Amino acid sequence: MDVSEIGEFGLIGRLASILGREAPADLIVGIGDDAAVWRAGDQYVIATTDTMVEGVHFVADAASWADIGWKALAVNVSDIGAMGGEPLFALVTLALPPDTAVDDMDALYRGLNGCAAEYGVAIAGGDIVSAPQVSVTVALMGRAQVAGGEPLLLLRSGAKAGDAIAVSGTLGASAAGLRRLREGGQSSDRLVRAHMRPSPPLSLGQEAARGGLRCGIDVSDGLLQDIGHICEMSGLGALVRADAVPTSPDLTFAYPQDALRLACAGGEDYELVLVGDRERIERAGAGSGIPVTIIGEMIEGGERRARLLDGEGSEINLGSPGWDHLRGTAFERRA
Amino acid sequence: MDVSEIGEFGLIGRLASILGREAPADLIVGIGDDAAVWRAGDQYVIATTDTMVEGVHFVADAASWADIGWKALAVNVSDIGAMGGEPLFALVTLALPPDTAVDDMDALYRGLNGCAAEYGVAIAGGDIVSAPQVSVTVALMGRAQVAGGEPLLLLRSGAKAGDAIAVSGTLGASAAGLRRLREGGQSSDRLVRAHMRPSPPLSLGQEAARGGLRCGIDVSDGLLQDIGHICEMSGLGALVRADAVPTSPDLTFAYPQDALRLACAGGEDYELVLVGDRERIERAGAGSGIPVTIIGEMIEGGERRARLLDGEGSEINLGSPGWDHLRGTAFERRA
Repeated sequence: MDVSEIGEFGLIGRLASILGREAPADLIVGIGDDAAVWRAGDQYVIATTDTMVEGVHFVADAASWADIGWKALAVNVSDIGAMGGEPLFALVTLALPPDTAVDDMDALYRGLNGCAAEYGVAIAGGDIVSAPQVSVTVALMGRAQVAGGEPLLLLRSGAKAGDAIAVSGTLGASAAGLRRLREGGQSSDRLVRAHMRPSPPLSLGQEAARGGLRCGIDVSDGLLQDIGHICEMSGLGALVRADAVPTSPDLTFAYPQDALRLACAGGEDYELVLVGDRERIERAGAGSGIPVTIIGEMIEGGERRARLLDGEGSEINLGSPGWDHLRGTAFERRA
Repeated sequence: MDVSEIGEFGLIGRLASILGREAPADLIVGIGDDAAVWRAGDQYVIATTDTMVEGVHFVADAASWADIGWKALAVNVSDIGAMGGEPLFALVTLALPPDTAVDDMDALYRGLNGCAAEYGVAIAGGDIVSAPQVSVTVALMGRAQVAGGEPLLLLRSGAKAGDAIAVSGTLGASAAGLRRLREGGQSSDRLVRAHMRPSPPLSLGQEAARGGLRCGIDVSDGLLQDIGHICEMSGLGALVRADAVPTSPDLTFAYPQDALRLACAGGEDYELVLVGDRERIERAGAGSGIPVTIIGEMIEGGERRARLLDGEGSEINLGSPGWDHLRGTAFERRA
């Protein structure tokens, strides 16, 4: 049996079960959320890691190295933001062939540094190794906001039946940008830029956690699949109204027929899904100055997944709810 | 210009200079030591990362997957130990082809879990991505011991002229084991086992830091090169007496002609170099029950590197002081 048969999430579950020992008391959040959280004295450390591999997550000649550096850090910032936390320090691992141009790596680091400056992150170390193709792995550490000695966290397990589901910004431009890249699009293209330079709404997650919200996830694999993770971890179902999903205007202009599918299952938008009290969600949006749109609600019973409904309340089947790193999707592969 | 021309350490220096912003006050140790350290409230977080790439750091059919899992974590434990710290939580990134056997990844995780249990580490999360070959990246976080509000750290910059240089255990078995693997050696071979199942002397580093020592590094690239990092960061030279270097008996038996060279420049022993007061070093060895051997001393003036001396005080030239990930060495490549 090979790993593509059980998929990314099957493999994670299997490997987690091998690590059968009791989790230490200081570990507040372990495998299965956007990031891990542990207690360190009177603080709570948040840590996450993400990798980008040449030929899988990016094509070196279709995207600039500076963009790749930016994105490698930004996707990790998104994970910390989706916990309601503050990113602080990053370790950067570069795997690269010995004949890689020094100029390309300079550009990669300039992009990384730009993203680090934008989000207040310091690069504190890393590792450089030889490999057949370039990959960039960032481990990002930060801290949770704390009130009364307790960490203020947005967890996948924090949803309750009746909670509103909201998402920041607009969706689908990243998946459309990936398609543009394959069609020869340049980095000046707005859709390509959305794909290569994601700007996660960090302050929204922080405002939400401070304002009493307790559930969130970032849109990385695809909106419906990511909400599905909340369903699994919270033991609930979810209804999402297709006509409420904020689709990127650039996407709707470029690919009108595919706009809904790319917005709901395309992934890599690195927007933030918030789940909880509608007024608190709206206050978090107003407080951070980042637009949020209510798109559905959590429900008791039924399947633990997100169902996309049309205006008549019938389910729309998009073929795939999102991305699986080991299986890909029915309609899209990364590179 | 490609990266092999400037080498791993040239590239690190160049990339560090791109990250030109002022380091935040909470960052105690940044790029250039075994691990990064920052203040988190009343604690000090230590974080490090290391990668192993198939075809570069290991050959999948020559070494068992369980060994690869063990080693991927052990080399990071070594870095935390070389700071005098305590490892706590790991993030594990698996990059793997979709046709990888699930059984192989199970075995890798069992090895990882064995090492985690040995050193008291909890696997707190990670990432799984598709890639053309398997690689395992571990980010390991822990904490420094603290006394009077200050962290007790072993730093590369902590050496003073006249300090004794010591090393734990014996050296060279790992490099000899790598040679055995290339000659078709099995994992039951003691030298191969030394290469694939390193057991860093974690308690020695902790005892040393508690006992007032302030300088150390682990033997990863090669003894002379690793001491050379201490020379650079402390602004000193180092003399190492060849007849004092504790060479592995298994190595001396298997490859008597090459024993000194493999012990001094072979690398990957993950033993601990301690630099400081001789009595404190001996007390740390006695307190942890781990043998330490005095092999030389730090000196003022001259080149900032380690010179290996024979019984007459003449320098022995081994051709290369150790391993560079982008250049390899004059006499050995990893796989």
